[in-house]
Amino acid sequence: MLDDLKRDVLLANQELQRQKLVIYTWGNVSGIDRASGLVVIKPSGVAYDDLTVEDMVVLDLEGNVVEGDLRPSSDTPTHLELYRRFKDIGGVAHTHSLWATVWAQACQEIPCRGTTHADYFYGSIPCTRPLTPGEVARDYELNTGKVIVERFQTIKYQEMPAVLVAEHAPFTWGKDPGEAVHNSVVLEQVAQMAFLTRQLSGDDRPISRHVLEKHYLRKHGPDAYYGQS
Amino acid sequence: MLDDLKRDVLLANQELQRQKLVIYTWGNVSGIDRASGLVVIKPSGVAYDDLTVEDMVVLDLEGNVVEGDLRPSSDTPTHLELYRRFKDIGGVAHTHSLWATVWAQACQEIPCRGTTHADYFYGSIPCTRPLTPGEVARDYELNTGKVIVERFQTIKYQEMPAVLVAEHAPFTWGKDPGEAVHNSVVLEQVAQMAFLTRQLSGDDRPISRHVLEKHYLRKHGPDAYYGQS
Amino acid sequence: MLDDLKRDVLLANQELQRQKLVIYTWGNVSGIDRASGLVVIKPSGVAYDDLTVEDMVVLDLEGNVVEGDLRPSSDTPTHLELYRRFKDIGGVAHTHSLWATVWAQACQEIPCRGTTHADYFYGSIPCTRPLTPGEVARDYELNTGKVIVERFQTIKYQEMPAVLVAEHAPFTWGKDPGEAVHNSVVLEQVAQMAFLTRQLSGDDRPISRHVLEKHYLRKHGPDAYYGQS
Amino acid sequence: MLDDLKRDVLLANQELQRQKLVIYTWGNVSGIDRASGLVVIKPSGVAYDDLTVEDMVVLDLEGNVVEGDLRPSSDTPTHLELYRRFKDIGGVAHTHSLWATVWAQACQEIPCRGTTHADYFYGSIPCTRPLTPGEVARDYELNTGKVIVERFQTIKYQEMPAVLVAEHAPFTWGKDPGEAVHNSVVLEQVAQMAFLTRQLSGDDRPISRHVLEKHYLRKHGPDAYYGQS
Repeated sequence: MLDDLKRDVLLANQELQRQKLVIYTWGNVSGIDRASGLVVIKPSGVAYDDLTVEDMVVLDLEGNVVEGDLRPSSDTPTHLELYRRFKDIGGVAHTHSLWATVWAQACQEIPCRGTTHADYFYGSIPCTRPLTPGEVARDYELNTGKVIVERFQTIKYQEMPAVLVAEHAPFTWGKDPGEAVHNSVVLEQVAQMAFLTRQLSGDDRPISRHVLEKHYLRKHGPDAYYGQS
Repeated sequence: MLDDLKRDVLLANQELQRQKLVIYTWGNVSGIDRASGLVVIKPSGVAYDDLTVEDMVVLDLEGNVVEGDLRPSSDTPTHLELYRRFKDIGGVAHTHSLWATVWAQACQEIPCRGTTHADYFYGSIPCTRPLTPGEVARDYELNTGKVIVERFQTIKYQEMPAVLVAEHAPFTWGKDPGEAVHNSVVLEQVAQMAFLTRQLSGDDRPISRHVLEKHYLRKHGPDAYYGQS
Repeated sequence: MLDDLKRDVLLANQELQRQKLVIYTWGNVSGIDRASGLVVIKPSGVAYDDLTVEDMVVLDLEGNVVEGDLRPSSDTPTHLELYRRFKDIGGVAHTHSLWATVWAQACQEIPCRGTTHADYFYGSIPCTRPLTPGEVARDYELNTGKVIVERFQTIKYQEMPAVLVAEHAPFTWGKDPGEAVHNSVVLEQVAQMAFLTRQLSGDDRPISRHVLEKHYLRKHGPDAYYGQS
Repeated sequence: MLDDLKRDVLLANQELQRQKLVIYTWGNVSGIDRASGLVVIKPSGVAYDDLTVEDMVVLDLEGNVVEGDLRPSSDTPTHLELYRRFKDIGGVAHTHSLWATVWAQACQEIPCRGTTHADYFYGSIPCTRPLTPGEVARDYELNTGKVIVERFQTIKYQEMPAVLVAEHAPFTWGKDPGEAVHNSVVLEQVAQMAFLTRQLSGDDRPISRHVLEKHYLRKHGPDAYYGQS
């Protein structure tokens, strides 16, 4: 079942490794089939080079395993919460990529310092609040998803396909698993640029509002003119 | 038409990727045939690995497409303005390479800290002023070219084949598309060296004027003696 | 004798190079056969590409060579001291990997700044005191082992498979040579993340105690649920 | 003539590129045959991939070309001065490698921060004074050699096979061209480690004198016991 989606999820997981966003088994990508409401995700702790289409785990949105012999990623409840609350997304990626993780560990949002950032993310990339002892003790991975959703009460997830979980690492999303990974790659790049720009400038001044709008909208707005029509 | 130039432009675009100056479709190189006044440029948003000679777009200096089925790079008006005003150049490259972009995002020029820089750039690598809201709202890419030209009123573009666009990223040029990319590679290297030198020294002191002149002129002056005659 | 262990030690040494933790001959891995009390270690100063299974040196825990024509690694007495005192370990790795060595050179422990660290190391990664002139003059490599053991008087080596030797570089260990190298790779990653997090945050604040416990125990505790059962 | 030395010099030059110490033509290695007093060096401005044994240039110690159709490296007079004054060396390498060049651009010597450095360099790696306008105007490359020699009046070049030329870049040497390049690789590594250690510690404190002596002498002293006898 869902063979195409399984293959997409497999390739997206392997792309994490190819793009040097993960070492060992430090990341996971999932995808959802919105028609059936079923999610496909990487099994927990399996090396990317060993993964096969058959290893992919299929779950419903409540977390019941529908198909697959392996245990799903331990971060599965976070993915499921995102799919339940962010209705338009089709893929989710989680990594411990270096530069994004450094911002998450510092519990700081990433300001938009230039057009590279503005081409993909419509403003600062937000960071969640730290989880409370109670949220960690019980349903930790589900609560990770909940603090992400909480942080997006005043942010449109469609315009901001990335978040930093405080003390932890980033999650990204997109219309499918491949785009979720693409956004992880770009996040890593802009996280490094923002880090170094702060070191050089000594401040956190974001770019002009009009440049942010121009760059984001020429790629993503209704009158976008970047790329081929 | 212009098959040789198209091939040069194609190879120069692919060299951006090989030199790790770009990921995805984040850069573009063009070349000009000065005899006919026609410019060849990469199509917008096409992956470097998929590019063919036939995909290259040919335009006149007013921006009319003369040949090609694809939409030209969204940065085309910037390239054309440079060709119109910098009469001796034959190639232009634009990237979001990490270190040069960091200086551009900090809106700072790159001081000449050593002979590596002096071998290619005759002084500080300039940074433009930020564009105004009006310049961004209408003819943004053309105005990007105009603020570059404005910045060169007191600088000879022949001795300074690179510029940083504030809040954005670098442009470089050269006698042909390959040399424009070569200068992007060198810019990236000297941008990193200058960044780290400031961190180590705590200052922005440029090298001695006599060392700058010696190194620039032994490679580029009328009595140059670097390389084979 | 001990052919399987020799092969494991050979592969683990070559993995150091593949993971870019060493250049030239700057590292060594050993393994122990607890049944016989014999240790297998890399010969001193031999390039990783030239190593063969036959080159491996076998010693007893007092340092007597039992088999092998080559001189063992000059760091052998350090390895032996660790095997004598840390009874549960099966492999030891020593490198001069960049980021871990920088912390060792600064004589500072690595604070736990995020979940990546907490997944492997249960608290700050300790740094030894510097050796005294007397400890360096006589039995230097043995005394290196002794200051490591001294530092672990109040730390469980089972929960902290890494140490920084002040002014020098890291040692790591594990249940076998491969896991010792795995821990060297992870140490290098968390050393870099902690360095950059301090630069960004300006402080050394560790993550919440409840997040540290959660992440360490979900992978290593009696109720671990990461990976496949 | 000198075919073996030419091949060694060729391979050593190509090794610069393989070790990522140079891009384009930014470095050169030479070797000397002490019996005949003849020096073999890379031709100026030729790409490493295009170099052949026949391209190597042979000169006497006064700089007269004895064999070869190409112009020798523009840095040849610096190499020759080193061979004339440092009687025991057999190879010289010059690069603009990133981290060593950053220290040279900051006009600062590299303190010995750890055992990695002490294994190769017996103390701080020195930096020359800047050249005067007169020294640059006439015989620049020869005078570069002279300020290096001047800096070594109180340093034994046998124990310190590297130097930083202020505002410029490093030179290294060794018993043959391969060892000169080896020392360039190690210099680059210790330059990066020292840079980052200063950032972490906020000071420039060198390692203990007894650790420096121990590590340098266990590899290079009369009673050295590192490696195979």
